[in-house]
Amino acid sequence: MDLLTGFIAFIDKERLFTRDQSMLLAVSGGVDSVVMAHLFKAAGFNFSIAHCNFQLRGEESLRDEAFVEDLAASLQVPFHQVRFDTTAHTASHRVSIQVAARQLRYEWLEQTRVTAACNYIVTAHHMQDSAETVLMNLSKGTGIAGLHGILPKQGHLVRPLLFAQKADIQAYATEHHIAFVEDSSNITVKYTRNFFRHKVIPVIQEAYPGVVANIAGSITRFREAEILYAQSVETHIKRLVEQKGNMYMIPVLKLQKTVPLQTVAWEIFRQYGCSPAQLPQVLELLDSSSGKLVETGTHRIIRDRQWLLITPLAEEEAPVIVIEKDRTAVAMAGGLLKLKTSARKDTTTIPAAAHIACLDKHALQYPLILRKWKQGDYFYPLGMRKKKKLSRFFIDQKLSLPRKENTWVLESAKRIVWIVGLRIDDRFKITDQTKELLTIEWETL
Amino acid sequence: MDLLTGFIAFIDKERLFTRDQSMLLAVSGGVDSVVMAHLFKAAGFNFSIAHCNFQLRGEESLRDEAFVEDLAASLQVPFHQVRFDTTAHTASHRVSIQVAARQLRYEWLEQTRVTAACNYIVTAHHMQDSAETVLMNLSKGTGIAGLHGILPKQGHLVRPLLFAQKADIQAYATEHHIAFVEDSSNITVKYTRNFFRHKVIPVIQEAYPGVVANIAGSITRFREAEILYAQSVETHIKRLVEQKGNMYMIPVLKLQKTVPLQTVAWEIFRQYGCSPAQLPQVLELLDSSSGKLVETGTHRIIRDRQWLLITPLAEEEAPVIVIEKDRTAVAMAGGLLKLKTSARKDTTTIPAAAHIACLDKHALQYPLILRKWKQGDYFYPLGMRKKKKLSRFFIDQKLSLPRKENTWVLESAKRIVWIVGLRIDDRFKITDQTKELLTIEWETL
Repeated sequence: MDLLTGFIAFIDKERLFTRDQSMLLAVSGGVDSVVMAHLFKAAGFNFSIAHCNFQLRGEESLRDEAFVEDLAASLQVPFHQVRFDTTAHTASHRVSIQVAARQLRYEWLEQTRVTAACNYIVTAHHMQDSAETVLMNLSKGTGIAGLHGILPKQGHLVRPLLFAQKADIQAYATEHHIAFVEDSSNITVKYTRNFFRHKVIPVIQEAYPGVVANIAGSITRFREAEILYAQSVETHIKRLVEQKGNMYMIPVLKLQKTVPLQTVAWEIFRQYGCSPAQLPQVLELLDSSSGKLVETGTHRIIRDRQWLLITPLAEEEAPVIVIEKDRTAVAMAGGLLKLKTSARKDTTTIPAAAHIACLDKHALQYPLILRKWKQGDYFYPLGMRKKKKLSRFFIDQKLSLPRKENTWVLESAKRIVWIVGLRIDDRFKITDQTKELLTIEWETL
Repeated sequence: MDLLTGFIAFIDKERLFTRDQSMLLAVSGGVDSVVMAHLFKAAGFNFSIAHCNFQLRGEESLRDEAFVEDLAASLQVPFHQVRFDTTAHTASHRVSIQVAARQLRYEWLEQTRVTAACNYIVTAHHMQDSAETVLMNLSKGTGIAGLHGILPKQGHLVRPLLFAQKADIQAYATEHHIAFVEDSSNITVKYTRNFFRHKVIPVIQEAYPGVVANIAGSITRFREAEILYAQSVETHIKRLVEQKGNMYMIPVLKLQKTVPLQTVAWEIFRQYGCSPAQLPQVLELLDSSSGKLVETGTHRIIRDRQWLLITPLAEEEAPVIVIEKDRTAVAMAGGLLKLKTSARKDTTTIPAAAHIACLDKHALQYPLILRKWKQGDYFYPLGMRKKKKLSRFFIDQKLSLPRKENTWVLESAKRIVWIVGLRIDDRFKITDQTKELLTIEWETL
């Protein structure tokens, strides 16, 4: 089967997207992403190309940028690009170059996907990337979820080259005389991954030349095993956990007899804020006297005669913070907001990071109100014309329970302006008419 | 926690054996098995020591044998030993030195366990052996069962050092001034394992120094995940497979809708002789017309309107082969028997391999009868005084269904003499009174 046929079959089998949807391809200019763009063209899919210039390699970065721009032109598809001050981000966020590049890249891609009204971001991860992930997870210790490798579809990301071996991608480029630049996407690759790619896998290949394909085949089975695992966990939870109002009850005797105890207990208690380090303490409650308890970040687990009772930690009086027009900083539980007003110039670029809100100041009515989100809240997510419930938005964002519970919203005249750190409201975005900007940066503490 | 405490805790936690049971320790003379023997002594357990001399390294093999004999004497425990003609076995069975050594070793250990009335054979596999197994399985491709590593308990084998790191074992030897020889057990170690031990793991350790312990920790979670997997498979099978007499019925629509289909289908159809290569053909029946069928080695799977029907292949007329006194070879389905009569001498050694039956000729009544086993059959397994049903014996031996169905038994005057290739009957074994031997060798074809 040639690469193009395999590519279309994989998209179909994994239901990655349909022909009427529009895709945003992350293209570095390296062989993988360039071949991917050519495959999209050959298949007749609807797509745009996005390129990040991390400005880390001077002339070479500019060369790559120009190369990808030309590629988009020759394939006759829209082109989006951005230049990051990666070094500054590294310093201001105290993260490594790799982490900075990944953060900037995915934040900007998501923002671009929304503003360009694309359905999915597409990356060129292939079979070996996925095999590397599994080997690395295993080497640093993992559970069954660490064995599914890189997923073909995850939120708004799809990876239609996961079926392909690196060698097949390279062969396709040669056969079709496809030009590419040296793979600059390696900037976003961690040191450890490169170490596995260049030092570990070649050694294993001496004993098992087919190791990459072998692991990829195993991943397919592990993914199905993970589904069966989840089904079984669900059955245990239904059997063990009883809900009464906002309290959950687990019969001690039934839990004690559960096989396998450790994993089932972990899958239950993690939902109530239990950390792996706390699990042994929670399990000790099975042999404790009434009244003993363990507190997680979000819940209290109490031994009460033949039951474990799980109750949410008493919530503090819901805090409301009023922000007057001249305020420049606001401290609250979990973080700090920094506010800055500036005039809009033609050269103004809108920061892409989700932790920065860039708002049209004249659309706002003061004072602004900062509060925790509550059920029933809704907003118009940036790039969308329809309103959306926050509860629904959190599900799409796959927020964990504690993360969700601690989310703040910024309000102006009873309208939500910003889900702090996640997404601004479309009604307050910068437009061509905007004269003055309010930029708010959220720093988690 | 020191090694001895960890050792006792691990035996307790994994319920490997109890203090009133008697253990047969496989001791090569290397640091792992010698430290294990010292730990058994220090813990006050009841044990014997067994040593295999593979006669592959001349003087050195003799040195190791003498060393282990002295160790047994100094620990004041019974000593069993054997010398193998490993090279001859390699030639006659056309297997590698490693495979020959492993076959000879486990067959003899099991025979010795039975005759010495021990409960379990004990080997000195440690944490790194188990981590190597998982990495090797992953590299050659595996399912979830390939991730549980070396099991602490399996049939009549226990491995109480799996909790320990190699370095801890070596430190214990140093601290307690325990002498040992260079680890000759490596003879039974495959080339690939040595490759992973000396070439792959040290490289990974450069990136993840804790890789061995990390994999070992993951194995604990994978084992529990495997239990949850099995529970879920069981639920699907109950939901999907209906038994009517000796026929099994699966509703096509229900199977088609099953998630995850591939794995659940595999777990169902493997029970009816389906091979991995046949599974796609069986799944094609879901989209076929009535009357289409797939034949496995043991069953017929037929599409019949909205059902898949599974029926056993029509059995051939049960064959019975009569063996007269002067017969020297018998060919039958699956193999060949070679018979040889000889006088018993003082120097006669009884072959340990399960594929050779060594019988007291005068206990036999001719003609002998060779037939397939049937429900209701029982015998007195070598080393036991109580009779045992064959169906029970097969469960203990963990025979696969096809292997079980193809098992022959040798009968003398309606009494079972030998479960061919598996175990002789205690009533026909060689004793001090035996004058003439009948040796029967089973060659599978």
